[in-house]
Amino acid sequence: MKARGRRVWIDPRVAQTPDAEALRTQRGPLRFRELAVRARRVAGYLHARGVRPGGVVAALLPGGTAFAEWLHGIDRCGATLLPLNLRLATGELAFQLRDAGAGWLVHDAPFAERARRAARDLDVCLVPADAPAETDAVEPPFVRGDAPLALLYTSGTTGRAKGVELGSESFFHGALASALHMGALPTDRWLACLPLYHVGGLAILLRCCLYGIPAVLHERFDPADLSRAVDREGVTLVSLVPTMLAHWLDERDGRPVPPSLRAVLLGGAAASEGLLERAHRLGVPVLPTYGLTEAASQVATRIPGDSMRPLGGRLRPLPGTELRIAREDGRAAAPEEAGEIRVRGPTLMRGYRRLPGATEAALAGGWLRTGDIGVLDAEGLLQVLDRRDDLIVSGGENVYPAEVEAVLADHPGVGEVAVGAREDPEYGERPVAWIVAATRTPSPEELRGFCRERLAGYKVPVAFEFVAELPRSATGKLLRRALNARPA
Amino acid sequence: MKARGRRVWIDPRVAQTPDAEALRTQRGPLRFRELAVRARRVAGYLHARGVRPGGVVAALLPGGTAFAEWLHGIDRCGATLLPLNLRLATGELAFQLRDAGAGWLVHDAPFAERARRAARDLDVCLVPADAPAETDAVEPPFVRGDAPLALLYTSGTTGRAKGVELGSESFFHGALASALHMGALPTDRWLACLPLYHVGGLAILLRCCLYGIPAVLHERFDPADLSRAVDREGVTLVSLVPTMLAHWLDERDGRPVPPSLRAVLLGGAAASEGLLERAHRLGVPVLPTYGLTEAASQVATRIPGDSMRPLGGRLRPLPGTELRIAREDGRAAAPEEAGEIRVRGPTLMRGYRRLPGATEAALAGGWLRTGDIGVLDAEGLLQVLDRRDDLIVSGGENVYPAEVEAVLADHPGVGEVAVGAREDPEYGERPVAWIVAATRTPSPEELRGFCRERLAGYKVPVAFEFVAELPRSATGKLLRRALNARPA
Repeated sequence: MKARGRRVWIDPRVAQTPDAEALRTQRGPLRFRELAVRARRVAGYLHARGVRPGGVVAALLPGGTAFAEWLHGIDRCGATLLPLNLRLATGELAFQLRDAGAGWLVHDAPFAERARRAARDLDVCLVPADAPAETDAVEPPFVRGDAPLALLYTSGTTGRAKGVELGSESFFHGALASALHMGALPTDRWLACLPLYHVGGLAILLRCCLYGIPAVLHERFDPADLSRAVDREGVTLVSLVPTMLAHWLDERDGRPVPPSLRAVLLGGAAASEGLLERAHRLGVPVLPTYGLTEAASQVATRIPGDSMRPLGGRLRPLPGTELRIAREDGRAAAPEEAGEIRVRGPTLMRGYRRLPGATEAALAGGWLRTGDIGVLDAEGLLQVLDRRDDLIVSGGENVYPAEVEAVLADHPGVGEVAVGAREDPEYGERPVAWIVAATRTPSPEELRGFCRERLAGYKVPVAFEFVAELPRSATGKLLRRALNARPA
Repeated sequence: MKARGRRVWIDPRVAQTPDAEALRTQRGPLRFRELAVRARRVAGYLHARGVRPGGVVAALLPGGTAFAEWLHGIDRCGATLLPLNLRLATGELAFQLRDAGAGWLVHDAPFAERARRAARDLDVCLVPADAPAETDAVEPPFVRGDAPLALLYTSGTTGRAKGVELGSESFFHGALASALHMGALPTDRWLACLPLYHVGGLAILLRCCLYGIPAVLHERFDPADLSRAVDREGVTLVSLVPTMLAHWLDERDGRPVPPSLRAVLLGGAAASEGLLERAHRLGVPVLPTYGLTEAASQVATRIPGDSMRPLGGRLRPLPGTELRIAREDGRAAAPEEAGEIRVRGPTLMRGYRRLPGATEAALAGGWLRTGDIGVLDAEGLLQVLDRRDDLIVSGGENVYPAEVEAVLADHPGVGEVAVGAREDPEYGERPVAWIVAATRTPSPEELRGFCRERLAGYKVPVAFEFVAELPRSATGKLLRRALNARPA
């Protein structure tokens, strides 16, 4: 078979339905024809400034039309988008820019100062998002089908953030599989109130482009705005994390949702049975989802027909995605036996950027080792028992304890440190730090300030507990579960 | 990129939703789990009898569950299905078996005698459709991704039927494109009352398997059965040819269709504006379609949002399919300028079986020359002006004049012959023969009987007109349009 080039997402779509609505923001609608014009302008601008296939363009942009224009413009010139988490601290931004080898950093006006600080010591060209004006259009260059379209940073147990390289093909196969799994209609409208710099939000933009339907973008989650979109603006699909769903159910205060709402894709963290039960009573068609950045988002999702059975629902792998459960020794677990969830299929990442060792470890044999624990039943349906046991999911954001621990360990008052999770009715979980003090005991205020300078706000522990020693196994391994179980 | 093997259609589906309904016939439902068991049985049976990748298994089967079982069984052992048109005469069947190099001929009990006669002088193994019993399952062998899944015979202007080799990939891309174009829902049910041995019917079976929805199979078109399926059995998609639609509208006698009917895919022949207007008045969501065996069926289809604008609707190419209009000299026509419709995309055939010259002529430069005439507007929407000018479409079946002419020319009483079309209120068109008699003038009855022995009934001319000479151009080329315009 011939090697095919990387697809350009916007071109076939604008050829197909130029006048269909591509985006709807609080500032109004944008048609595919207009989005394509802007994407071409971005591509021409970047090309004139030397951006070529393989180049990495970072973006510090809120979730509006500019984000979509730059995504499609970067795609069109064959480059790679590094969407930066807007909540990261300067040092974290600088790390990702350096590690990714980003040559350009696009920013919206309100982020100009943060962009300047993050790029201070780097060879990065700063580009205001509204810089591209009329310019000569360039034809998309030939790019290999597996060239990365996006680079998304995620941390692991080591605390070092790793760049997940996702090819266009990963998003393409994910989009097709999702359409077959949940259904797709020409009349769909998909609302994203999740950050677009996460894989879930980014996937919505690309899927809507492939399907030819509008992506409805809310820059921030607001339950009343969500209700208006669902009740009056014909939104049929919504992606939420459990914290958002809980707030939304509060806001609705018993009002049922219209039948036009086809599905609420619920991801990011495990949802409690209580929350699913509440949603069920209001007739909200919730589809719990298990997804991973390394698999371009959705891996397994409850199917629509099952969504109204609130309890005991299990997740069905998306078509094309294979799951297995591995025992500690790597062999396949029996049905209903718990083990590590492993994933194979056309949506998997190419690997971690410039980390062949970590990539090999994660993708050995073509199966992604997720580190998460689950079971498959005899029918092949997945139940996720536990996310990677060190991962803290706080309001849809992942907090990796090792990353927070690495920061705190740098404080002179900290001898040993361990970060665990505390249950939180609003955020699901919040990080908490257990500390064995060094010669002097620092105050919680001092540690909080130290963290705030170096970490995104959602990663800063909500409490600092001082202990005489940390619970460890006989071999000296930190027992995080024992930590989390402690009253704090 | 690595060469991927040919997909097996039933295996991922049964892994995904084993208990979903796969088929519904007048004898009841069949689940994917059961269909897979039967397909494995067929595959094991064929494998034990020496069927290997590349082998051609012909099928003389009516459009019921057995057809689907054999399709998936043949797919599972990596072989190629040759679905035989049940209306062909013995000589026509024998030609296809010989030309295809078919080694096996599966037949249903009522077709045993026809199968025996067609295979009489050939090295073909006859297999009753119910022969496979319990057998050792075999794992699907590795088959190249572009190995043909189906071989479908179509005639051309030369009158020699050509075998169109369609790879699994052609059907797969067609299925995905169709889902994005018309929408797909997990609650869809697609009714096929078209013959499954045509590309449109075959594609429905494969699409429903990919989507995980039931294919509702009616062995023959019956307007009352169709109404019951739409009104009471939840059918959401129906594929029809214009003759069927006209009969169905008669049957409904003004009763509106339920909103659950999402689309009536109307293909096979151009629909008159009068018919579309009638359908529109009854609220039938008709989507006129242009399709070709060589492109695994759908090429361009009116999109759902447009379907209620009865007049002036144009067809939108399916996502991934490109269209161009070529002038006589091969150069691209301007928008709104008529010329030959050419098609490019991932659904195109591999070629005509064992006819490299014809394949090269049809697919030169990667674009399929359809021979049909159309225009593209400035937005890229297609209007089909004229099917290949010699093609007669009679009740959804294609009649190639050259094929009928070749038969008549063998009759001793026929000097010259030309076959044209006569408009028919029920069938759209019927074939008519114009004959310049040889030394003696044969009777119409004699010619009719001569044709019936050698041709499928729908190809036999409904009238034989004797003329002194045939209209020809200065260069001697038969002027079929002049023929068709004559009062007969």
